[in-house]
Amino acid sequence: MNIKHISGGVCAPQGFQAAGIHCGIRKNHEKKDLALIVSENKAAAACVYTQNLVQGAPIAVTKAHVQDGYAQAIIVNSGNANTCNENGLEIASEMCSLVEMHTKISSEDVVVASTGVIGQKLDITPIAQGMEQLVSQLGACSEDAAHAIMTTDLEEKEIAVSFPLQDTTCCIGAIAKGSGMINPNMATMLCFITTDVSITPALLQKALSQDVENSFNMVCVDGDTSTNDMVTVLANGKAGNPIITEEDEAFQIFCQALGEVTTFLSRKIAKDGEGATKLITCEVTHAADDMAAKKIAQSVIASPLVKTAMFGCDANWGRVLCAMGYAGASMDVSQIGVSFQSAAGSICVCDKGQGVSFSEEKATAILSKDEIIISIGLGDGDGHAVAWGCDLTYDYVKINGDYRT
Amino acid sequence: MNIKHISGGVCAPQGFQAAGIHCGIRKNHEKKDLALIVSENKAAAACVYTQNLVQGAPIAVTKAHVQDGYAQAIIVNSGNANTCNENGLEIASEMCSLVEMHTKISSEDVVVASTGVIGQKLDITPIAQGMEQLVSQLGACSEDAAHAIMTTDLEEKEIAVSFPLQDTTCCIGAIAKGSGMINPNMATMLCFITTDVSITPALLQKALSQDVENSFNMVCVDGDTSTNDMVTVLANGKAGNPIITEEDEAFQIFCQALGEVTTFLSRKIAKDGEGATKLITCEVTHAADDMAAKKIAQSVIASPLVKTAMFGCDANWGRVLCAMGYAGASMDVSQIGVSFQSAAGSICVCDKGQGVSFSEEKATAILSKDEIIISIGLGDGDGHAVAWGCDLTYDYVKINGDYRT
Repeated sequence: MNIKHISGGVCAPQGFQAAGIHCGIRKNHEKKDLALIVSENKAAAACVYTQNLVQGAPIAVTKAHVQDGYAQAIIVNSGNANTCNENGLEIASEMCSLVEMHTKISSEDVVVASTGVIGQKLDITPIAQGMEQLVSQLGACSEDAAHAIMTTDLEEKEIAVSFPLQDTTCCIGAIAKGSGMINPNMATMLCFITTDVSITPALLQKALSQDVENSFNMVCVDGDTSTNDMVTVLANGKAGNPIITEEDEAFQIFCQALGEVTTFLSRKIAKDGEGATKLITCEVTHAADDMAAKKIAQSVIASPLVKTAMFGCDANWGRVLCAMGYAGASMDVSQIGVSFQSAAGSICVCDKGQGVSFSEEKATAILSKDEIIISIGLGDGDGHAVAWGCDLTYDYVKINGDYRT
Repeated sequence: MNIKHISGGVCAPQGFQAAGIHCGIRKNHEKKDLALIVSENKAAAACVYTQNLVQGAPIAVTKAHVQDGYAQAIIVNSGNANTCNENGLEIASEMCSLVEMHTKISSEDVVVASTGVIGQKLDITPIAQGMEQLVSQLGACSEDAAHAIMTTDLEEKEIAVSFPLQDTTCCIGAIAKGSGMINPNMATMLCFITTDVSITPALLQKALSQDVENSFNMVCVDGDTSTNDMVTVLANGKAGNPIITEEDEAFQIFCQALGEVTTFLSRKIAKDGEGATKLITCEVTHAADDMAAKKIAQSVIASPLVKTAMFGCDANWGRVLCAMGYAGASMDVSQIGVSFQSAAGSICVCDKGQGVSFSEEKATAILSKDEIIISIGLGDGDGHAVAWGCDLTYDYVKINGDYRT
């Protein structure tokens, strides 16, 4: 299929506008902290949420608003998670009412999200005061919105793709934030996806739920599953394709394009994990089944000892086997093969469950690159999975040793 | 009950001798790397092992040797885990044969353990060459043995207690190593316990298996479950108490004294976790049941974000709630209370699931101490648990960034 990367982010699909401003939730005036994405018309909406039992107030409000399968706007703030505080639900609802007041979009059609410190009251005043400016700046400003939802992220995360669907050219755009409190358990971050594809809410939800199992749920930065994770997709139908109502070829094409977007962002989130210097990809093949492969890939990518070894360019593959062994998946240990790969080459370090002699010099050269693949082969079946993570560094400790000040 | 802490470590119980030497497995001549513990007579033996699927060769050999419920000696090396290598089983068996050759104790009655780097061949030569010296030094040398089993541990871990049992005074002694690859999943480290109590192998195993659930399995340094974890207890009956053959009062007294030993060592292991500056204790009360309380305490103690906040003396209690929320235990979030305690006082930071205003200055003073208690109260039932961990620091990254060189 012909999927093209294009510019424009969430504003690339027809009928979407976005904006991002600094309204004053954050003290740093340089840092945008409020974002808005709107569709010209009501769009089919699908969401997946964190599975943490402690959930941000915005999640409850969003769940209520998308229950009918439709939404038209997304408002997001950074700097405060609006979670575990006094009147979080009230504040989240007020954020939606402010959107209605300034855009005429019904508050019931607004998705709301917050990210930042947990347990502090979110003051509605700066948001209320900033709304006029925010709405006035609505346009092809996906990048501003991408900036506004960042917390400790160093890079904004934005993508758009176009692809042919039946006789139409369709687009999907997205922005995301990641960085910390990232662990695979249903969409562990914030991501807002827009598309002009015409599709029913039920199939949109199906496409999204399937997709996150192989994309965002396969990302791990630190093993902490956030209270505020959410992935939302709005599909406004502006591309004019015949509406997708069943799991036909058009649905498969849409899923493939969606996967291109979410995989791209998953890798971005992993590579920009707090303090990270490297993107670590773990590929597992020939596991007993896909679920076993996923468990193994996630366990390796989450191991602090593997992560610190990668930071130190140390081919300590024993730690990879150790993490595989406690993954909770059955495997024939005597069939395990491990190799490290990067732009500098590939080196086999373990064969049939035992170490093989290798050049430490070559291994160090391979592990010195900023994108490393840990490739694991088993002899158990046809299971396959890919997970993404990053190294564990001094800066992770620094960033999180005093996050609130 | 009157449990007294005494000196002597594993040699405090009657009929036990120990030794520890540098034989040359490690390059650093200052660092002992081979330990031996022997009993005058055959002792009842019980073991628990790592649940990692990838297991060190010594574990297989030890399992075979204690299958009949008895053992008489323990040989341990540090510097090499004898795991995932070519002829590990052979080497582990040879270590037991060397004990037989030099002590006349049958190799079938030898427990063998190894700790250190995974995946490299363990050379038997330095061990064979060191055996004569090792055996000649057997005596009241528990501390030497404790030193010899250390890897990145900064402090040796040793304890002995005496307690009255029926009309006899009995002793339990122990040495342990911890530091890295520490996560609660059945005895996550090495610990060797000696006692002169007379007890059947079956009840000894029962006492040990019960005990580790509330002691070593409640310790977490980094979330990596090692391939070589093992806890062994040898009971040689030299105290002369009537042999314990059922779960009577004497059994309960023994279990209590054993708990004193293992809890002491669990705290030691947590406090001396790799790079740690603080012992973090998490106490959970009024959970739905003990299992829920354990899951919650373990999740909080394992959270990298809680650990870095503790390092930074930052009362970021939202991260405590976040970690509780993904613990996999059901709870009423609206009833959660959290306080931080140390020698500098106590401060409540969360009540009924919401933040309460508190003095940041006082919180920082409390969190600046080197032993912190995170006390969590729920409103779900009578479940109670305690878990021990440590902070996550720059030094953890430093130590593990290049462990092999």
